[in-house]
Amino acid sequence: MMNVIYLVPALGLIGLIVMAIKSAWVSKQDAGDKNMQELAGYIADGAMAFLKAEWKVLSIFVAFAAALLAYSGTIHEVNGKPIHSSWIISIAFIIGAVFSATAGYIGMRVATKANVRTTQAARTSLKQALKVSFTGGTVMGLGVAGLAILGLGGLFIVFLNIFADLGVDTVKTSIEVLTGFSLGAESIALFARVGGGIYTKAADVGADLVGKVEAGIPEDDVRNPATIADNVGDNVGDVAGMGADLFGSYVATILATMVLGQEIDASGDQFGGMSPILLPMLICGLGIVFSIIGTWFVTIKDDKSSVQNALNLGNWASMAITVVASYFIVMWMLPESLSMRGYNFTSLNVFYAILVGTIVGAIMSIVTEYYTAMGKAPVLSIIQQSSTGHATNIIGGLSVGMKSTVIPILTLAAGIMASYYFAGLYGVAIAAAGMMATTAMQLAIDAFGPIADNAGGIAEMSQLPPEVRERTDNLDAVGNTTAATGKGFAIASAALTSLALFAAFVGIAGIDAINIYKANVLAGLFVGGMIPFIFSALCIQAVGKAAMDMVQEVRRQFREIPGIMEYKAKPEYEKCVAISTKASIREMMLPGAIALITPLIVGFAFGPEVLGGLLAGVTVSGVLMGIFQSNAGGAWDNAKKSFEKGVMINGEMFYKKSEPHKASVTGDTVGDPFKDTSGPSMNILIKLMSIVSLVIAPYIAVEGGMTSEQGMKMNGAQMECCGDMMSTNSGMDMGKCDMSLCKTMSKEECAAYCDSVGCSAEEKEMCQSMYGADGKFDEAKCKEMCKTKMGSSCMEGCDKGCKTAEECAKSCGDACVKSHATKM
Amino acid sequence: MMNVIYLVPALGLIGLIVMAIKSAWVSKQDAGDKNMQELAGYIADGAMAFLKAEWKVLSIFVAFAAALLAYSGTIHEVNGKPIHSSWIISIAFIIGAVFSATAGYIGMRVATKANVRTTQAARTSLKQALKVSFTGGTVMGLGVAGLAILGLGGLFIVFLNIFADLGVDTVKTSIEVLTGFSLGAESIALFARVGGGIYTKAADVGADLVGKVEAGIPEDDVRNPATIADNVGDNVGDVAGMGADLFGSYVATILATMVLGQEIDASGDQFGGMSPILLPMLICGLGIVFSIIGTWFVTIKDDKSSVQNALNLGNWASMAITVVASYFIVMWMLPESLSMRGYNFTSLNVFYAILVGTIVGAIMSIVTEYYTAMGKAPVLSIIQQSSTGHATNIIGGLSVGMKSTVIPILTLAAGIMASYYFAGLYGVAIAAAGMMATTAMQLAIDAFGPIADNAGGIAEMSQLPPEVRERTDNLDAVGNTTAATGKGFAIASAALTSLALFAAFVGIAGIDAINIYKANVLAGLFVGGMIPFIFSALCIQAVGKAAMDMVQEVRRQFREIPGIMEYKAKPEYEKCVAISTKASIREMMLPGAIALITPLIVGFAFGPEVLGGLLAGVTVSGVLMGIFQSNAGGAWDNAKKSFEKGVMINGEMFYKKSEPHKASVTGDTVGDPFKDTSGPSMNILIKLMSIVSLVIAPYIAVEGGMTSEQGMKMNGAQMECCGDMMSTNSGMDMGKCDMSLCKTMSKEECAAYCDSVGCSAEEKEMCQSMYGADGKFDEAKCKEMCKTKMGSSCMEGCDKGCKTAEECAKSCGDACVKSHATKM
Repeated sequence: MMNVIYLVPALGLIGLIVMAIKSAWVSKQDAGDKNMQELAGYIADGAMAFLKAEWKVLSIFVAFAAALLAYSGTIHEVNGKPIHSSWIISIAFIIGAVFSATAGYIGMRVATKANVRTTQAARTSLKQALKVSFTGGTVMGLGVAGLAILGLGGLFIVFLNIFADLGVDTVKTSIEVLTGFSLGAESIALFARVGGGIYTKAADVGADLVGKVEAGIPEDDVRNPATIADNVGDNVGDVAGMGADLFGSYVATILATMVLGQEIDASGDQFGGMSPILLPMLICGLGIVFSIIGTWFVTIKDDKSSVQNALNLGNWASMAITVVASYFIVMWMLPESLSMRGYNFTSLNVFYAILVGTIVGAIMSIVTEYYTAMGKAPVLSIIQQSSTGHATNIIGGLSVGMKSTVIPILTLAAGIMASYYFAGLYGVAIAAAGMMATTAMQLAIDAFGPIADNAGGIAEMSQLPPEVRERTDNLDAVGNTTAATGKGFAIASAALTSLALFAAFVGIAGIDAINIYKANVLAGLFVGGMIPFIFSALCIQAVGKAAMDMVQEVRRQFREIPGIMEYKAKPEYEKCVAISTKASIREMMLPGAIALITPLIVGFAFGPEVLGGLLAGVTVSGVLMGIFQSNAGGAWDNAKKSFEKGVMINGEMFYKKSEPHKASVTGDTVGDPFKDTSGPSMNILIKLMSIVSLVIAPYIAVEGGMTSEQGMKMNGAQMECCGDMMSTNSGMDMGKCDMSLCKTMSKEECAAYCDSVGCSAEEKEMCQSMYGADGKFDEAKCKEMCKTKMGSSCMEGCDKGCKTAEECAKSCGDACVKSHATKM
Repeated sequence: MMNVIYLVPALGLIGLIVMAIKSAWVSKQDAGDKNMQELAGYIADGAMAFLKAEWKVLSIFVAFAAALLAYSGTIHEVNGKPIHSSWIISIAFIIGAVFSATAGYIGMRVATKANVRTTQAARTSLKQALKVSFTGGTVMGLGVAGLAILGLGGLFIVFLNIFADLGVDTVKTSIEVLTGFSLGAESIALFARVGGGIYTKAADVGADLVGKVEAGIPEDDVRNPATIADNVGDNVGDVAGMGADLFGSYVATILATMVLGQEIDASGDQFGGMSPILLPMLICGLGIVFSIIGTWFVTIKDDKSSVQNALNLGNWASMAITVVASYFIVMWMLPESLSMRGYNFTSLNVFYAILVGTIVGAIMSIVTEYYTAMGKAPVLSIIQQSSTGHATNIIGGLSVGMKSTVIPILTLAAGIMASYYFAGLYGVAIAAAGMMATTAMQLAIDAFGPIADNAGGIAEMSQLPPEVRERTDNLDAVGNTTAATGKGFAIASAALTSLALFAAFVGIAGIDAINIYKANVLAGLFVGGMIPFIFSALCIQAVGKAAMDMVQEVRRQFREIPGIMEYKAKPEYEKCVAISTKASIREMMLPGAIALITPLIVGFAFGPEVLGGLLAGVTVSGVLMGIFQSNAGGAWDNAKKSFEKGVMINGEMFYKKSEPHKASVTGDTVGDPFKDTSGPSMNILIKLMSIVSLVIAPYIAVEGGMTSEQGMKMNGAQMECCGDMMSTNSGMDMGKCDMSLCKTMSKEECAAYCDSVGCSAEEKEMCQSMYGADGKFDEAKCKEMCKTKMGSSCMEGCDKGCKTAEECAKSCGDACVKSHATKM
């Protein structure tokens, strides 16, 4: 049955093969006339130029970080505690980084092909245009999910083989090394998201401010020098950035579930006790297949059909299939009863947790759609407030954004409590994994938006007939809503994933609580809460600064290059592309550094509990700021878009160019960095900081603390005796000797182990005395010793040192004896 | 030496007497010509009308809440645990509410007198105008601080007498009943701040949008129908609202310190062990006197002198005197060594904690000033970004606000850690109290701003010569900065106070940790973090809505009343006043209800630990949102003001009415509700929710939990034996019998107590056996029993039931014996 482990990378491969087929299909489509191809060429070149510039900088970072990780992998002991790591973590890190970059690259390449082909298809019908753009999105989705599953599943098999001779530590070490993969992926995701987000919004805001507002030419006008940069931005930000982002999220979620899965005692399964580890990978791998099935539903009959409905159908279909399939997978793989950190649950409960995750994800999507969709109360209220000027429009948008946090947070809180109730911390993690299983489909829907946006841009720039632009606008409008719901989904999964990572961190760092009532932990919570604020400020400010540079450059070109406005001279597109590229690379450094370095400083200077407080602060504040900014931005955007068809305010109709419309453009411009730069970066920020903390956890584990495995055992309410003995709080302290490890070793191995960690002679002897004549660890003996040596040997108040029930009866009476019976 | 307790209300009285003298002086000043007096009359009437309408609503709330509290006071036992409360808490609550309202009223009355008199004084010189306006502010400051100290000190004496026959519970019950005073004060503060904040900004935004932007008439033009409402707003929001706010903060801070102070064992002092309780009251009481001294420094030579410097001098002087005096008071009152929850510290360390608090307050003020002052980098960056339009101005302001959280949060975190390091949780609380000691001075500086603002308005409306307006503008500009620094101060003290309240809550609720690693506590943290967002959204939205009503009304008057623009007809001021009044009363309900009811729901439904998580979330997110919003608003305001004298952007000068100026007006308008409605409400929100939690803590204390006193003893690392015995986690459980209470009783009292709480016969007997032949509690006997009965009787790993060192030596060896010596 262990063959199921090979199924995982195979599923990833299937995704990649389907992707290749779909990608080839897109390439084969008609790319339109020479003019269109030229414009598309500019966009593709600009996007490639940005990716190259970004990769250059990131490769330095990756090399540096990999060296650091390789060094850390050579440390095998900190404060006398063994650390299960290896220099191979640096290889995993590099692979994660490369895969993440590749995922972005695949998406961007197909997007820059699909855009012009969508324009061309839109000349014939909406149905065809949807097909091309959505297939482009599907390539991206399958590429990301396929690479993630292939990478995780493949590396896990490789690591299991590499560390096969570590015996009991094989799985543990494999998973710890695998965190490097996730760290690599998430690091690249952060830079790609922030860099791409700054790029796209600097170009967008800059192009709009001079083009639309000052020069009075339409969006995507070929005369605007910044228009190519704007379209490049859609590809590097909304496609490549988002691809890397969701790649990172997806990997982190699965990994967090695996880390917690290894703590579960599932020895009754048919997978060598590894079923809880394999489960998330398998569900997400099959999710790829179900996403492919879902894409079949995304088709329309004619130009009058609803694109949104088609996408919804595909999305709900793949989610429904995944949920149903999860039931059978869970019931097949997991043993009926499981236990983690003292929390008991059944396999059915694990399924319920997955169900909870899916429901949370669905509610988050629906709520996000409500707060950002045209025609709904929140957007209407912003439109209403646009009538009294720019300021009231802004006030309206800010308050909509803030209000939109309420239901998602309550849903999330309920989801955390419910999934924990069903299956403990593993339940929280698997809920997130279940939610993320259809990432391929989610991403296909997400990525189709910017492709359609680009297609519209090319149509405008090529001065194609209005019905073409109308069709691409139809797709684009739907794309705006799907982008918003996708963000809701991403932030929900990030919150659940962080909690899972958080739980894993606590175990490895050897603490059994993060008590915010302690002054320094509370201080950590404050500092953590502040990080999303400074991170957002830096992103927003970067967009503002870069946009101003862009404005100056566009103004200069209008001034210095005569004939642009009369179509007689070509603007210098590449100069604007260069400005965005340079600015985004430069400005992504500081926020990225804050995310990476803060946990290091806090962890090493103040220890794991304060770091835990920091993480909690980052998570809570990051989720709130993410929802607030994404939704405010989305609502402003659609409030502005509503003016295109005209809106009624106090009985009067207003259209584009009216005063209220101008106010709504202000809101949209403010919302741009909110919804595409800082807002969506929040979920990466949260996860990246959690992963960094997880990676450094063994090195900052508390003095005399526990290893991960012990920590987990210690946390539960029902502690096993032989684990209990090691507790630093209990009556006896075994010092460095870890009986719960010996339990899994032979007598000789245990002796060697005791020597290696520096146990005293007494400690070693006690450990050795636990072995029976056959050289096997005698659990009964261990428990007996616990009974006699621990304070818990008698009932409360009766401790007169009795070692057996008989003795107890003599010294303490019958009540005590009864207690012996019930307690042991 | 106990007479010192009478000194406290006496100091409050001194403050009130000086206030009365200063108030009489203000009244005696020349109130100007008939026209000015008429305008001032409108303002005073409008303000009074609002207060009356507000009080009407609040009196219903107070009556209802008081009834609930009185009922709760009759519950003497929950889950078998005794609760130390009394129906008298409802009286304390009512007095707190009335005092808080009175504080606001005093401020508003003097402000509506001082405004016109400042205008009149400004006709002669800046020096005189400063004197009148600052004296007006001083009346407010002294009124608030005097009432607070008189109320706290006086009620404490009364309660000590009322509960004198409770023996050991006298102090405890007195302080618990005193929390009602703080609850009343803080409740009124919330409504006053939110209601007043909505009022003032609805009027301000509404008046600006139609008057300045649409009709093109100056601010405070007599033709604008909303101008009176705008000026009323300054009085009900910035004066009455702020007065109630700081009254609440001040009381909460002192009370939190008293609650923690009662846990300190200070039996070596000359005040019957009550020195840690009296200390915060005494320091704050003397702070009133030092504030009076500080006001002497606030004077200028002529029109060219710097008003800011004069205010700074007064402020720093009173702070310096307070710090120096604190040293002597602390050294005189406190015994040299103290201990709380196992944390040992010296009296000198308590002084250091006060010093930390003062430094934190000073840094917060300086940072706030930096981020909001004209001519500094942040405001200049917003001006710069105004050149590219409304949107970039908004982006600039938002990012300045977010960035401005960094240093305050790091300062706060360091302050929490440092003050805890010096004197444990008491240190954190006393740091806040030290910071708040010069509240009278702070408030004088704060309240002088709106008086000057009003004076300017009256000058404008009465069409007085430009030099008069220039003088009042000079004062107003300084007032803007002091308002911002005052908010920094308030939020810092709120954060520290909340932590202190938090600590008190933990003790009373019988939990010894708030572990965010638990799923439901984390869920509480999320929900708590969300509260400031929805609260802010509701406040901002209320301002937006009410401002729109105002705009419609002003437009209607311009349209329907001919001759307004030609000064031929008088606008209907009272209609605008009525709109603001109605809107603010209506809109303050929901946010107020959220603040009051959320802790009740969470506490009773999910228990104290989840409520603790909620409080932590509210505190962190509230502090961040408070700083963010207040500073963004302040920076926008001064960016706009900078245009009055002209600003240089990219080498070009811009003045009022230029495009960048218009953009800056948008920012200012957005910032108005940020800085005067939602931002400053955050600190009340935080504290009110903490106080509500503290009040309900005994009723939601965990099953088998501890009483406050025990809880505190249990928390420390070095637990006292006779307290330790009661721990539910320790080897023996005394059930309902609380040995640490018996310790303070006679044998008979203890027997009666055991019966009253329902101890079993064995439990009672054990308690009785602790008394010596003389009928006195024998602590040595108790400790001996602890040694023999508790798991801690031997060193870790040696527990073989030895009762004496000799026995131990026999069974366990010398190492164990040594442990006996060091441990007991």
